[in-house]
Amino acid sequence: MSAIESNRRFMHCPSFKEKMAESDQSKEVAAPPFHNELTVDPITLTPFKGPLHCPAYEDLLDKRRSLRTYDTDKPLTQEQLSFLLWSAQGIQFTRGHSSFRPTPSGGARHPFETYIAVRFVSGIQPGLYRYVPQSDIGEKKATIGRIGDLDYENEIGPMLMGQTWAVKAPAVLFYTCVPYRAEWRYVDMAHRVMLIDLGHLGQNVMFSAAGLGLGSCCMAAYDQALCDKTLGVDGINEYTVYAVSVGAAK
Amino acid sequence: MSAIESNRRFMHCPSFKEKMAESDQSKEVAAPPFHNELTVDPITLTPFKGPLHCPAYEDLLDKRRSLRTYDTDKPLTQEQLSFLLWSAQGIQFTRGHSSFRPTPSGGARHPFETYIAVRFVSGIQPGLYRYVPQSDIGEKKATIGRIGDLDYENEIGPMLMGQTWAVKAPAVLFYTCVPYRAEWRYVDMAHRVMLIDLGHLGQNVMFSAAGLGLGSCCMAAYDQALCDKTLGVDGINEYTVYAVSVGAAK
Repeated sequence: MSAIESNRRFMHCPSFKEKMAESDQSKEVAAPPFHNELTVDPITLTPFKGPLHCPAYEDLLDKRRSLRTYDTDKPLTQEQLSFLLWSAQGIQFTRGHSSFRPTPSGGARHPFETYIAVRFVSGIQPGLYRYVPQSDIGEKKATIGRIGDLDYENEIGPMLMGQTWAVKAPAVLFYTCVPYRAEWRYVDMAHRVMLIDLGHLGQNVMFSAAGLGLGSCCMAAYDQALCDKTLGVDGINEYTVYAVSVGAAK
Repeated sequence: MSAIESNRRFMHCPSFKEKMAESDQSKEVAAPPFHNELTVDPITLTPFKGPLHCPAYEDLLDKRRSLRTYDTDKPLTQEQLSFLLWSAQGIQFTRGHSSFRPTPSGGARHPFETYIAVRFVSGIQPGLYRYVPQSDIGEKKATIGRIGDLDYENEIGPMLMGQTWAVKAPAVLFYTCVPYRAEWRYVDMAHRVMLIDLGHLGQNVMFSAAGLGLGSCCMAAYDQALCDKTLGVDGINEYTVYAVSVGAAK
């Protein structure tokens, strides 16, 4: 079978019910945690109190366009970053092993982690951060942790496979996948669903950026090995899946 | 390699640049059309003139939840259906071989088609319809065509792999993928990107339903062969990828 044939087949729906009987959930294995632990000091960003620059959903349908030209001199505010992070992956409430967020995820698994490459965010030292919603359940705020340095100007371009325009964005969000969180329920049917779920959250980031009067660009093209290495993930149990640049238009 | 290992790898980003050189686009093969042709009489739904029941994006972030209990007696209005269809896949403008819509798609390929299983939409005969945005470029309206009968009560449950609660929804949207539209540019890298794009549009349908005061539920589980057969697609060059029930809550 050619790569195209087999990839088309990957998009088909398998027979869920039979396969779910083989899952760790069916075997009553304990559910994985909602999030990876944060082992550094938490920093709570100044919460976004509104109002949005463009509050109406109907207007966002027209205003949301991919933006690739950023104003280098305009920082992202903490409030803006807080809203972007929360509106894609904040935990609104939990029920048993499920977390509920502003985007839907198959089986409420939400198998993603958010990393932030910061070049220019007001009051935040440049570097690499991680967003951990678990401490903010039910609150519209965002707690992040600084996980390392990043030579933004020189590293972002290669990480994004030469999309060097992103160097001018004040920040790039990187989403990783922790596949077991969904495999626990959906076994080898999880991966197709996770990619769809990734689109759900990407759309929220883009709407939120447009709502804040900013622009964004979702990127499915990035250097897998380099992103995984830079974010400090192993590429197997956690790997990069999406990158979103955000910032003010030039 | 186990199915889980190989599926995890499917989610990884390949080396885009090298592969894109092999694409039909690089070989200057003519771009595929934005949409499959509609060969039946077009029906223009009464356009949605607003305002939304819940117009604020920030509120939608809280209100959008999967709904599985529908009020059997409440029809979907033509205006509501029109907005749901347009806000996910309407063409706002075109540029060369690219169409631009309220959701982003890698390379602006938008490799999807929308089908509507109608049980109870005001002024529309029950049956199976297809949405064709091409005649409405730049306009916030939706033209559909009736492509066949459908025994909704008996067919929807099996099509949705036993999710029989959907029988009570006044309509179910089915999205299919026409993979060549994206393969033309991205070859065998297209399929991962198409699944992410599918999530983008799914999120719009769900926000739009919540904005209209309705509920919705996105379903990645459905009977592939039965859906393809019922929708009249061959399962190879076009196949079902997502189903979304919409309607008023009970």
